[in-house]
Amino acid sequence: MSESTVPNIVIRRLPLYARELGLLEAEGCAYISSKELGHRLDVTPAQIRKDLSYFGRFGRQGRGYDVGDLRQRLRRILGLDGRVQRMVLVGVGQLGRAVLDYAGFPMQGFHVVRAFDSDPEVIGRVIADVQVDDVADLPGYLERQPVALAIVTVPAAAARSVVETLVAGGVNAILSYAPIATAVPDGVHLRQIDPVMELQSMAYYIRQGELNHTAEVEPGG
Amino acid sequence: MSESTVPNIVIRRLPLYARELGLLEAEGCAYISSKELGHRLDVTPAQIRKDLSYFGRFGRQGRGYDVGDLRQRLRRILGLDGRVQRMVLVGVGQLGRAVLDYAGFPMQGFHVVRAFDSDPEVIGRVIADVQVDDVADLPGYLERQPVALAIVTVPAAAARSVVETLVAGGVNAILSYAPIATAVPDGVHLRQIDPVMELQSMAYYIRQGELNHTAEVEPGG
Repeated sequence: MSESTVPNIVIRRLPLYARELGLLEAEGCAYISSKELGHRLDVTPAQIRKDLSYFGRFGRQGRGYDVGDLRQRLRRILGLDGRVQRMVLVGVGQLGRAVLDYAGFPMQGFHVVRAFDSDPEVIGRVIADVQVDDVADLPGYLERQPVALAIVTVPAAAARSVVETLVAGGVNAILSYAPIATAVPDGVHLRQIDPVMELQSMAYYIRQGELNHTAEVEPGG
Repeated sequence: MSESTVPNIVIRRLPLYARELGLLEAEGCAYISSKELGHRLDVTPAQIRKDLSYFGRFGRQGRGYDVGDLRQRLRRILGLDGRVQRMVLVGVGQLGRAVLDYAGFPMQGFHVVRAFDSDPEVIGRVIADVQVDDVADLPGYLERQPVALAIVTVPAAAARSVVETLVAGGVNAILSYAPIATAVPDGVHLRQIDPVMELQSMAYYIRQGELNHTAEVEPGG
Protein backbone atom coordinates (compact mmCIF):
# COMPACT_ATOMS: atom_id res chain seq x y z
CA MET A 1 0.00 0.00 0.00
CA SER A 2 1.75 3.17 -1.11
CA GLU A 3 1.55 6.42 0.80
CA SER A 4 -0.43 8.26 -1.84
CA THR A 5 -3.30 5.79 -2.01
CA VAL A 6 -4.49 6.20 1.58
CA PRO A 7 -6.01 9.63 2.23
CA ASN A 8 -4.21 11.71 4.83
CA ILE A 9 -7.40 12.12 6.85
CA VAL A 10 -7.72 8.33 7.18
CA ILE A 11 -4.17 8.06 8.55
CA ARG A 12 -5.03 10.77 11.06
CA ARG A 13 -7.95 8.73 12.38
CA LEU A 14 -5.97 5.50 12.89
CA PRO A 15 -4.30 6.60 16.15
CA LEU A 16 -7.74 7.58 17.45
CA TYR A 17 -9.02 4.08 16.72
CA ALA A 18 -5.90 2.50 18.24
CA ARG A 19 -6.21 4.60 21.41
CA GLU A 20 -9.88 3.78 21.88
CA LEU A 21 -9.19 0.07 21.33
CA GLY A 22 -6.50 0.31 24.01
CA LEU A 23 -9.07 1.77 26.42
CA LEU A 24 -11.56 -0.99 25.49
CA GLU A 25 -8.88 -3.62 26.07
CA ALA A 26 -8.21 -2.12 29.51
CA GLU A 27 -11.95 -2.30 30.22
CA GLY A 28 -11.84 -6.03 29.43
CA CYS A 29 -13.80 -5.76 26.18
CA ALA A 30 -12.81 -8.50 23.66
CA TYR A 31 -15.06 -7.69 20.69
CA ILE A 32 -16.69 -4.51 19.46
CA SER A 33 -18.96 -3.67 16.54
CA SER A 34 -18.22 -0.77 14.18
CA LYS A 35 -21.47 0.73 15.46
CA GLU A 36 -20.36 0.73 19.10
CA LEU A 37 -16.84 1.89 18.25
CA GLY A 38 -18.30 4.66 16.10
CA HIS A 39 -20.60 5.74 18.91
CA ARG A 40 -17.65 6.05 21.31
CA LEU A 41 -15.67 8.10 18.80
CA ASP A 42 -18.43 10.18 17.22
CA VAL A 43 -17.66 8.67 13.80
CA THR A 44 -20.17 6.79 11.61
CA PRO A 45 -19.80 2.98 11.51
CA ALA A 46 -19.59 3.20 7.69
CA GLN A 47 -16.63 5.58 8.02
CA ILE A 48 -14.79 3.17 10.30
CA ARG A 49 -15.38 0.23 7.96
CA LYS A 50 -14.27 2.30 4.96
CA ASP A 51 -11.13 3.57 6.74
CA LEU A 52 -10.10 0.05 7.75
CA SER A 53 -10.84 -1.36 4.28
CA TYR A 54 -7.70 0.41 2.98
CA PHE A 55 -5.59 -1.98 5.01
CA GLY A 56 -7.29 -5.33 4.50
CA ARG A 57 -10.12 -7.28 6.05
CA PHE A 58 -10.95 -6.79 9.71
CA GLY A 59 -13.80 -8.03 11.86
CA ARG A 60 -16.36 -10.76 11.34
CA GLN A 61 -20.03 -10.53 10.43
CA GLY A 62 -22.13 -10.62 13.58
CA ARG A 63 -19.20 -10.63 15.96
CA GLY A 64 -17.44 -7.36 15.28
CA TYR A 65 -13.77 -6.60 15.67
CA ASP A 66 -11.35 -8.51 17.87
CA VAL A 67 -10.26 -5.57 20.04
CA GLY A 68 -6.72 -6.75 20.84
CA ASP A 69 -6.01 -7.98 17.33
CA LEU A 70 -7.29 -4.84 15.60
CA ARG A 71 -5.28 -2.63 17.97
CA GLN A 72 -2.09 -4.61 17.28
CA ARG A 73 -2.64 -4.46 13.53
CA LEU A 74 -3.30 -0.71 13.59
CA ARG A 75 -0.17 -0.12 15.65
CA ARG A 76 1.83 -2.17 13.16
CA ILE A 77 0.38 -0.19 10.23
CA LEU A 78 1.31 3.04 12.05
CA GLY A 79 4.85 1.81 12.68
CA LEU A 80 4.29 1.82 16.45
CA ASP A 81 5.00 -1.85 17.10
CA GLY A 82 7.60 -1.57 19.80
CA ARG A 83 10.07 0.61 17.93
CA VAL A 84 11.53 3.76 19.48
CA GLN A 85 11.01 6.96 17.51
CA ARG A 86 13.89 9.39 17.95
CA MET A 87 13.05 13.09 17.89
CA VAL A 88 14.81 16.42 18.28
CA LEU A 89 13.14 19.35 20.03
CA VAL A 90 13.84 22.97 19.11
CA GLY A 91 12.95 25.69 21.63
CA VAL A 92 13.61 25.09 25.32
CA GLY A 93 11.44 27.85 26.80
CA GLN A 94 8.54 27.23 29.19
CA LEU A 95 6.60 25.25 26.62
CA GLY A 96 9.65 23.28 25.45
CA ARG A 97 10.43 22.29 29.04
CA ALA A 98 6.84 21.22 29.60
CA VAL A 99 7.14 19.03 26.50
CA LEU A 100 10.48 17.58 27.67
CA ASP A 101 8.85 16.77 31.01
CA TYR A 102 5.77 15.18 29.45
CA ALA A 103 5.71 11.50 30.31
CA GLY A 104 3.26 10.69 27.52
CA PHE A 105 5.94 10.81 24.83
CA PRO A 106 8.42 8.19 26.13
CA MET A 107 5.50 6.08 27.34
CA GLN A 108 4.39 5.82 23.71
CA GLY A 109 7.88 5.23 22.34
CA PHE A 110 8.75 8.80 21.33
CA HIS A 111 12.11 9.91 22.71
CA VAL A 112 13.70 13.35 22.48
CA VAL A 113 17.39 12.60 21.83
CA ARG A 114 18.63 16.22 21.74
CA ALA A 115 17.17 19.69 22.31
CA PHE A 116 18.26 22.98 20.74
CA ASP A 117 17.93 26.63 21.76
CA SER A 118 19.57 29.98 21.02
CA ASP A 119 19.67 31.20 24.64
CA PRO A 120 23.23 31.01 26.11
CA GLU A 121 21.64 30.50 29.55
CA VAL A 122 20.14 27.21 28.40
CA ILE A 123 22.74 25.92 25.92
CA GLY A 124 24.91 23.24 27.49
CA ARG A 125 22.41 22.35 30.19
CA VAL A 126 20.69 18.99 30.61
CA ILE A 127 16.92 19.30 31.09
CA ALA A 128 14.77 16.25 31.80
CA ASP A 129 17.77 14.07 30.83
CA VAL A 130 18.08 15.78 27.46
CA GLN A 131 21.17 17.74 26.46
CA VAL A 132 20.52 21.24 25.09
CA ASP A 133 22.77 22.34 22.21
CA ASP A 134 23.14 25.62 20.34
CA VAL A 135 20.53 25.81 17.58
CA ALA A 136 23.38 26.87 15.27
CA ASP A 137 24.64 23.29 15.60
CA LEU A 138 21.32 21.79 14.48
CA PRO A 139 22.32 21.26 10.80
CA GLY A 140 25.56 19.57 11.84
CA TYR A 141 23.77 17.35 14.35
CA LEU A 142 21.21 16.20 11.78
CA GLU A 143 24.01 15.37 9.36
CA ARG A 144 25.77 13.20 11.94
CA GLN A 145 22.60 11.73 13.48
CA PRO A 146 19.73 11.65 11.00
CA VAL A 147 16.36 12.02 12.71
CA ALA A 148 12.95 11.78 11.05
CA LEU A 149 10.83 13.54 13.69
CA ALA A 150 11.05 16.97 15.31
CA ILE A 151 9.03 19.04 17.77
CA VAL A 152 9.12 22.81 17.40
CA THR A 153 8.41 24.89 20.53
CA VAL A 154 10.01 28.20 19.55
CA PRO A 155 8.09 31.52 19.42
CA ALA A 156 6.00 32.06 16.28
CA ALA A 157 8.49 34.54 14.78
CA ALA A 158 11.30 31.96 14.79
CA ALA A 159 9.23 28.95 13.72
CA ARG A 160 9.50 29.35 9.98
CA SER A 161 13.29 29.40 9.83
CA VAL A 162 13.52 26.49 12.28
CA VAL A 163 11.20 24.43 10.08
CA GLU A 164 13.32 25.26 7.04
CA THR A 165 16.48 24.15 8.84
CA LEU A 166 14.82 20.90 9.91
CA VAL A 167 13.55 20.15 6.41
CA ALA A 168 16.98 20.92 4.91
CA GLY A 169 18.47 18.52 7.48
CA GLY A 170 16.25 15.66 6.32
CA VAL A 171 13.55 15.74 9.00
CA ASN A 172 10.28 14.75 7.33
CA ALA A 173 7.75 14.85 10.16
CA ILE A 174 7.42 18.01 12.22
CA LEU A 175 5.03 18.80 15.06
CA SER A 176 4.85 22.54 15.68
CA TYR A 177 3.37 24.24 18.73
CA ALA A 178 3.78 27.59 16.98
CA PRO A 179 1.34 28.65 14.28
CA ILE A 180 3.21 28.49 10.96
CA ALA A 181 1.86 29.58 7.61
CA THR A 182 4.57 27.91 5.59
CA ALA A 183 4.49 25.37 2.83
CA VAL A 184 6.68 22.29 3.22
CA PRO A 185 7.98 20.18 0.34
CA ASP A 186 6.07 17.08 -0.78
CA GLY A 187 6.93 14.16 1.44
CA VAL A 188 7.37 16.35 4.52
CA HIS A 189 4.56 16.31 7.06
CA LEU A 190 3.92 19.35 9.22
CA ARG A 191 1.31 19.17 11.97
CA GLN A 192 0.38 22.02 14.23
CA ILE A 193 -1.00 22.05 17.74
CA ASP A 194 -3.53 24.87 17.63
CA PRO A 195 -5.46 25.26 20.89
CA VAL A 196 -7.15 28.44 19.60
CA MET A 197 -8.90 26.47 16.89
CA GLU A 198 -10.23 24.02 19.47
CA LEU A 199 -11.56 26.91 21.55
CA GLN A 200 -13.12 28.50 18.48
CA SER A 201 -15.06 25.40 17.55
CA MET A 202 -16.31 25.09 21.14
CA ALA A 203 -17.37 28.77 21.09
CA TYR A 204 -20.04 27.68 18.63
CA TYR A 205 -21.70 25.54 21.29
CA ILE A 206 -21.45 28.25 23.92
CA ARG A 207 -23.22 30.60 21.54
CA GLN A 208 -25.85 27.98 20.71
CA GLY A 209 -26.45 27.52 24.43
CA GLU A 210 -27.01 31.24 24.82
CA LEU A 211 -29.34 31.34 21.82
CA ASN A 212 -31.36 28.39 23.13
CA HIS A 213 -31.55 30.03 26.52
CA THR A 214 -32.78 33.29 24.96
CA ALA A 215 -35.29 31.33 22.91
CA GLU A 216 -36.64 29.65 26.04
CA VAL A 217 -37.05 32.91 27.90
CA GLU A 218 -38.62 34.74 24.98
CA PRO A 219 -40.51 32.19 22.94
CA GLY A 220 -41.85 34.87 20.63
CA GLY A 221 -38.42 36.49 20.02
CA MET B 1 -30.22 25.77 13.25
CA SER B 2 -30.16 23.79 16.47
CA GLU B 3 -27.01 22.28 17.91
CA SER B 4 -28.00 18.71 17.25
CA THR B 5 -28.62 19.11 13.51
CA VAL B 6 -25.07 20.11 12.56
CA PRO B 7 -22.58 17.25 12.99
CA ASN B 8 -19.81 17.89 15.49
CA ILE B 9 -17.16 17.19 12.87
CA VAL B 10 -18.56 19.99 10.66
CA ILE B 11 -18.33 22.49 13.52
CA ARG B 12 -14.73 21.41 14.06
CA ARG B 13 -13.86 22.25 10.45
CA LEU B 14 -15.37 25.76 10.51
CA PRO B 15 -12.46 27.41 12.40
CA LEU B 16 -10.09 25.81 9.87
CA TYR B 17 -12.03 27.40 7.02
CA ALA B 18 -12.19 30.75 8.84
CA ARG B 19 -8.44 30.73 9.52
CA GLU B 20 -7.55 29.89 5.93
CA LEU B 21 -9.90 32.62 4.67
CA GLY B 22 -8.12 35.06 6.99
CA LEU B 23 -4.78 34.06 5.44
CA LEU B 24 -6.26 34.48 1.94
CA GLU B 25 -7.60 37.91 2.88
CA ALA B 26 -4.13 38.89 4.09
CA GLU B 27 -2.74 37.69 0.75
CA GLY B 28 -5.17 40.05 -1.02
CA CYS B 29 -7.37 37.32 -2.45
CA ALA B 30 -11.01 38.45 -2.89
CA TYR B 31 -12.66 35.32 -4.29
CA ILE B 32 -11.86 31.63 -4.03
CA SER B 33 -13.44 28.49 -5.44
CA SER B 34 -14.30 25.49 -3.27
CA LYS B 35 -11.74 23.60 -5.36
CA GLU B 36 -8.88 25.96 -4.54
CA LEU B 37 -9.90 26.26 -0.89
CA GLY B 38 -10.13 22.49 -0.68
CA HIS B 39 -6.69 22.11 -2.21
CA ARG B 40 -5.17 24.44 0.40
CA LEU B 41 -6.84 22.55 3.24
CA ASP B 42 -6.58 18.97 2.01
CA VAL B 43 -10.40 18.66 2.01
CA THR B 44 -12.54 17.76 -1.02
CA PRO B 45 -14.49 20.65 -2.64
CA ALA B 46 -17.68 18.62 -2.19
CA GLN B 47 -17.00 18.39 1.56
CA ILE B 48 -16.59 22.17 1.83
CA ARG B 49 -19.82 22.81 -0.07
CA LYS B 50 -21.69 20.28 2.05
CA ASP B 51 -20.31 21.68 5.33
CA LEU B 52 -21.32 25.24 4.41
CA SER B 53 -24.77 24.15 3.20
CA TYR B 54 -25.79 23.58 6.83
CA PHE B 55 -25.66 27.34 7.36
CA GLY B 56 -27.25 28.75 4.22
CA ARG B 57 -26.16 29.69 0.74
CA PHE B 58 -22.62 30.86 0.13
CA GLY B 59 -20.68 31.59 -3.04
CA ARG B 60 -21.80 32.18 -6.58
CA GLN B 61 -21.59 29.86 -9.57
CA GLY B 62 -18.46 30.63 -11.57
CA ARG B 63 -17.11 33.19 -9.16
CA GLY B 64 -16.58 31.24 -5.99
CA TYR B 65 -16.77 32.51 -2.43
CA ASP B 66 -16.32 36.14 -1.41
CA VAL B 67 -13.36 35.59 0.95
CA GLY B 68 -14.05 38.47 3.35
CA ASP B 69 -17.80 37.88 3.50
CA LEU B 70 -17.51 34.13 4.06
CA ARG B 71 -14.94 34.64 6.81
CA GLN B 72 -17.19 37.16 8.58
CA ARG B 73 -20.19 34.88 8.33
CA LEU B 74 -18.26 31.89 9.64
CA ARG B 75 -16.95 33.92 12.55
CA ARG B 76 -20.51 35.03 13.35
CA ILE B 77 -21.74 31.42 13.21
CA LEU B 78 -18.93 30.44 15.59
CA GLY B 79 -19.77 33.26 17.98
CA LEU B 80 -16.40 34.94 17.37
CA ASP B 81 -17.69 38.27 16.09
CA GLY B 82 -15.85 40.63 18.38
CA ARG B 83 -16.99 39.18 21.67
CA VAL B 84 -14.56 38.36 24.46
CA GLN B 85 -14.65 34.77 25.71
CA ARG B 86 -13.83 34.53 29.40
CA MET B 87 -11.98 31.41 30.56
CA VAL B 88 -10.53 29.98 33.74
CA LEU B 89 -7.31 27.98 33.73
CA VAL B 90 -6.61 25.18 36.20
CA GLY B 91 -2.99 24.10 36.75
CA VAL B 92 -0.26 26.72 36.85
CA GLY B 93 2.79 24.49 36.34
CA GLN B 94 5.22 24.85 33.44
CA LEU B 95 2.58 24.10 30.85
CA GLY B 96 -0.04 26.32 32.51
CA ARG B 97 2.41 29.22 32.56
CA ALA B 98 3.22 28.69 28.88
CA VAL B 99 -0.51 28.82 28.15
CA LEU B 100 -0.94 31.99 30.26
CA ASP B 101 1.93 33.56 28.30
CA TYR B 102 0.58 32.51 24.91
CA ALA B 103 -0.36 35.64 22.95
CA GLY B 104 -2.56 33.68 20.53
CA PHE B 105 -5.44 33.43 23.01
CA PRO B 106 -6.09 37.13 23.77
CA MET B 107 -5.36 37.98 20.13
CA GLN B 108 -8.33 35.79 19.19
CA GLY B 109 -10.58 37.09 21.95
CA PHE B 110 -10.00 34.37 24.55
CA HIS B 111 -9.10 35.78 27.95
CA VAL B 112 -8.09 33.87 31.07
CA VAL B 113 -9.85 35.75 33.88
CA ARG B 114 -8.56 33.63 36.79
CA ALA B 115 -6.15 30.74 37.30
CA PHE B 116 -6.23 28.03 39.96
CA ASP B 117 -3.62 25.74 41.49
CA SER B 118 -3.09 23.66 44.62
CA ASP B 119 0.55 24.67 45.21
CA PRO B 120 0.89 27.18 48.13
CA GLU B 121 3.99 28.57 46.37
CA VAL B 122 1.84 29.72 43.44
CA ILE B 123 -1.48 30.58 45.12
CA GLY B 124 -1.88 34.33 45.55
CA ARG B 125 0.62 35.22 42.84
CA VAL B 126 -0.15 37.11 39.66
CA ILE B 127 1.27 35.42 36.54
CA ALA B 128 0.99 37.05 33.11
CA ASP B 129 -1.55 39.49 34.62
CA VAL B 130 -3.72 36.64 35.89
CA GLN B 131 -4.40 36.09 39.58
CA VAL B 132 -3.83 32.55 40.85
CA ASP B 133 -6.32 31.30 43.45
CA ASP B 134 -6.50 28.11 45.50
CA VAL B 135 -8.17 25.37 43.47
CA ALA B 136 -10.32 24.70 46.56
CA ASP B 137 -11.99 28.06 45.81
CA LEU B 138 -12.85 27.07 42.22
CA PRO B 139 -16.49 26.01 42.96
CA GLY B 140 -17.12 29.26 44.85
CA TYR B 141 -15.57 31.36 42.09
CA LEU B 142 -17.71 29.70 39.38
CA GLU B 143 -20.81 30.33 41.48
CA ARG B 144 -20.03 34.04 41.78
CA GLN B 145 -18.62 34.48 38.25
CA PRO B 146 -20.12 31.95 35.84
CA VAL B 147 -17.69 31.05 33.05
CA ALA B 148 -18.43 28.82 30.05
CA LEU B 149 -14.86 27.93 29.04
CA ALA B 150 -11.95 26.36 30.91
CA ILE B 151 -8.43 25.18 30.12
CA VAL B 152 -7.04 22.28 32.13
CA THR B 153 -3.25 22.05 32.45
CA VAL B 154 -2.94 19.86 35.54
CA PRO B 155 -1.08 16.51 35.60
CA ALA B 156 -3.04 13.56 34.19
CA ALA B 157 -3.75 12.12 37.66
CA ALA B 158 -5.60 15.26 38.75
CA ALA B 159 -7.41 15.97 35.49
CA ARG B 160 -10.51 13.89 36.08
CA SER B 161 -11.48 15.49 39.37
CA VAL B 162 -10.77 18.98 37.98
CA VAL B 163 -13.06 18.30 35.02
CA GLU B 164 -15.78 17.09 37.39
CA THR B 165 -15.49 20.25 39.47
CA LEU B 166 -15.67 22.43 36.35
CA VAL B 167 -18.72 20.61 35.01
CA ALA B 168 -20.45 20.83 38.41
CA GLY B 169 -19.71 24.57 38.36
CA GLY B 170 -21.49 25.06 35.05
CA VAL B 171 -18.52 25.14 32.67
CA ASN B 172 -19.65 23.53 29.41
CA ALA B 173 -16.58 23.77 27.19
CA ILE B 174 -13.28 22.36 28.42
CA LEU B 175 -9.94 22.15 26.67
CA SER B 176 -7.66 19.67 28.38
CA TYR B 177 -3.91 19.30 27.86
CA ALA B 178 -3.99 16.16 29.99
CA PRO B 179 -5.26 12.90 28.53
CA ILE B 180 -8.60 12.18 30.21
CA ALA B 181 -10.66 9.06 29.74
CA THR B 182 -13.78 10.44 31.31
CA ALA B 183 -17.31 10.85 30.01
CA VAL B 184 -18.88 14.29 30.32
CA PRO B 185 -22.63 14.95 30.46
CA ASP B 186 -24.56 15.78 27.27
CA GLY B 187 -24.19 19.44 26.44
CA VAL B 188 -20.65 19.61 27.84
CA HIS B 189 -17.83 19.68 25.29
CA LEU B 190 -14.45 18.27 26.20
CA ARG B 191 -11.55 18.62 23.77
CA GLN B 192 -8.09 17.28 24.32
CA ILE B 193 -4.76 18.43 23.02
CA ASP B 194 -2.99 15.19 22.27
CA PRO B 195 0.44 15.66 20.70
CA VAL B 196 1.16 11.92 20.92
CA MET B 197 -1.67 11.18 18.52
CA GLU B 198 -0.26 13.67 16.01
CA LEU B 199 3.15 12.00 16.29
CA GLN B 200 1.58 8.57 15.89
CA SER B 201 -0.16 9.49 12.66
CA MET B 202 3.09 10.94 11.30
CA ALA B 203 4.94 7.77 12.28
CA TYR B 204 2.95 6.08 9.53
CA TYR B 205 4.66 8.23 6.91
CA ILE B 206 8.09 7.68 8.40
CA ARG B 207 7.51 3.95 8.20
CA GLN B 208 6.23 4.23 4.62
CA GLY B 209 9.38 6.21 3.73
CA GLU B 210 11.54 3.44 5.18
CA LEU B 211 9.57 0.76 3.33
CA ASN B 212 9.85 2.67 0.04
CA HIS B 213 13.54 3.16 0.65
CA THR B 214 14.02 -0.54 1.34
CA ALA B 215 12.01 -1.35 -1.79
CA GLU B 216 14.29 0.88 -3.86
CA VAL B 217 17.44 -0.62 -2.45
CA GLU B 218 16.20 -4.18 -2.72
CA PRO B 219 13.80 -4.33 -5.63
CA GLY B 220 13.41 -8.07 -5.24
CA GLY B 221 12.79 -7.97 -1.47
